[in-house]
Amino acid sequence: SDRQAGQDGRTGESGEETSEFGQLGPVSHGPRLGIGMDSCVIPLRHGGLSLIQTTDFFYPLVEDPYMMGRIACANVLSDLYAMGITECDNMLMLLSISQKMNDKEREHVMPLMMRGFRDAAEEGGTSVTGGQTVMNPWIIVGGVATVVCQPNDFIMPDGAIPGDVLVLTKPLGTQVAVNAHQWMDIPEKWNKIKLVISKEEVEQAYQEAMLNMATLNRTAAALMHKFNAHAATDVTGFGILGHAQNLAKQQRNDVAFVIHNLPIIAKMAAISKAGGNLFGLLQGTSSETSGGLLICLPREQAARFCAEMKASRSSSLGQDGGIGDGQQAWIIGIVEKGNRCARIIDKPRIIEVPPSCS
Amino acid sequence: SDRQAGQDGRTGESGEETSEFGQLGPVSHGPRLGIGMDSCVIPLRHGGLSLIQTTDFFYPLVEDPYMMGRIACANVLSDLYAMGITECDNMLMLLSISQKMNDKEREHVMPLMMRGFRDAAEEGGTSVTGGQTVMNPWIIVGGVATVVCQPNDFIMPDGAIPGDVLVLTKPLGTQVAVNAHQWMDIPEKWNKIKLVISKEEVEQAYQEAMLNMATLNRTAAALMHKFNAHAATDVTGFGILGHAQNLAKQQRNDVAFVIHNLPIIAKMAAISKAGGNLFGLLQGTSSETSGGLLICLPREQAARFCAEMKASRSSSLGQDGGIGDGQQAWIIGIVEKGNRCARIIDKPRIIEVPPSCS
Repeated sequence: SDRQAGQDGRTGESGEETSEFGQLGPVSHGPRLGIGMDSCVIPLRHGGLSLIQTTDFFYPLVEDPYMMGRIACANVLSDLYAMGITECDNMLMLLSISQKMNDKEREHVMPLMMRGFRDAAEEGGTSVTGGQTVMNPWIIVGGVATVVCQPNDFIMPDGAIPGDVLVLTKPLGTQVAVNAHQWMDIPEKWNKIKLVISKEEVEQAYQEAMLNMATLNRTAAALMHKFNAHAATDVTGFGILGHAQNLAKQQRNDVAFVIHNLPIIAKMAAISKAGGNLFGLLQGTSSETSGGLLICLPREQAARFCAEMKASRSSSLGQDGGIGDGQQAWIIGIVEKGNRCARIIDKPRIIEVPPSCS
Repeated sequence: SDRQAGQDGRTGESGEETSEFGQLGPVSHGPRLGIGMDSCVIPLRHGGLSLIQTTDFFYPLVEDPYMMGRIACANVLSDLYAMGITECDNMLMLLSISQKMNDKEREHVMPLMMRGFRDAAEEGGTSVTGGQTVMNPWIIVGGVATVVCQPNDFIMPDGAIPGDVLVLTKPLGTQVAVNAHQWMDIPEKWNKIKLVISKEEVEQAYQEAMLNMATLNRTAAALMHKFNAHAATDVTGFGILGHAQNLAKQQRNDVAFVIHNLPIIAKMAAISKAGGNLFGLLQGTSSETSGGLLICLPREQAARFCAEMKASRSSSLGQDGGIGDGQQAWIIGIVEKGNRCARIIDKPRIIEVPPSCS
């Protein structure tokens, strides 16, 4: 079904960047970043400016069309935020309408999804000025985010040094939460996990995952500058370990990332174990959608970074009462000398993250 | 089937811009163009520069994956060319791989399609630095083109004046040619048109349509500056009349567009008539994919514009031997005083355009 498509399979998940996209264009001045990281960085012909842009699209994974629109937008913008960019000059929306929907469903669902996308864009201080819509068997939602930056506006994700610590700004486990929520209606699936979780707890975890996915990483992006972040990425389709490895590969210095702690939405670790290590959540390979930023910070700054994340309101960026006021962040590991790889220690500490509204 | 999807139906065709995308962002200085025209124009915070970008994606409509990639790229870039923009700072590729393909088909088709897209981007003096790929029931191919411009780099599509003439830079009939090519294998369809065309002629028209669709409108964009074009658009999903009407609506002056001539790929008018006015080709409503530019030019410049199109080689822009060397262009109508509408006269002259290689 449509809902399954983007979830049970790994392929086609959000954040599956197309690594086949090959080599970069002609050599030019200024920093340049191509395939493999979150956004591409193109030096422009005009006064030291760079064009930075990113695209992402995927299939709906939550049932609420408005929230799905917000999540899709947050997920696109997150690639800019991962570079410490807090502004976005323009967004395009990429949509497909499912042929299987009747007129009534279409008129109900699509405007809500577009509204959610637009509202999140507005919360990010930007707007949607164009896009493309097609008919397709499945619904697709996504977009393009573009900004023209001066050199100080962005942080290249390659400056980690031994002694840094790793900070994560959203808990893991969105994929497990979203799937567990579907399994409540599938007895053979539900039977495998019902001993460790109640339906009420699944509903709570699902709501929590949805709120987290809809939260912009914009506050984190702003604080990256204040606390001198050395590198960052956002956690999406490859899971925390996959993205940590990706980021490690990009580093200029001989470093390795070691992850000690896994903050996970409450009960999702237990479900994962009960289901036979579902999605590899405890190995760090479970996909996330619109996950948090994984940031390399100077050790002495990290605690204050986390404290300011917690204290922050989206309103500090000119909005108020936005989703994601007062986000939690965790120090999850360290940067040591090494050969540009990343690993999770043998028995990482699982941090159970309770619902934020409880 | 996959191939039918993007062709027989009007919905989801290339060029179906999402007019639902609503109002523009906050008012700011400099020209701004939002929904409805080919590209969006966003004034930047930096020294009078504008961000101009466009996106398009659709389903394959020709059988040759390499040519399909070229067509998709030409179609995306065309929205920039329609504004007289000859450079592109960055492209992203949007792809979906069909689930229905087996590994062998996938490994054959997708690299060729990506190669075609990249080659066309290179011919356009730009490159692809990122994108997104998902799995989907159908193949999708498209992209995003972005440029940062100074005011003189682009021509806002709103300056037509009475006395101008309308020039078209590619013949019409791509949709009819592509469909006729499929109908050769469907007896009940073929029986309707076989009295007016041979299979060999269909094959020729199909090849001609494919070459036209793969041709960049870049030469036309460059010549728009040289010959003081007042406005332009590219002809895609809404057909020549639909796009003429769209362009007319954008005009600052009280003008109307009147089309007298319809240059059409040889025999496609006859097929259209035989099939009962197929797709409304003679009414100007037949979809085109990666069609030509429709340009409002000062009357005294138009003949020279057409002559230079014919004489031009892509090499004048730094490439040589590219598809589309020596393109034909036609004066197809006039701009008169009126209320921002467009029409085709009662019995337009049909110009039969023979295959370019014949």
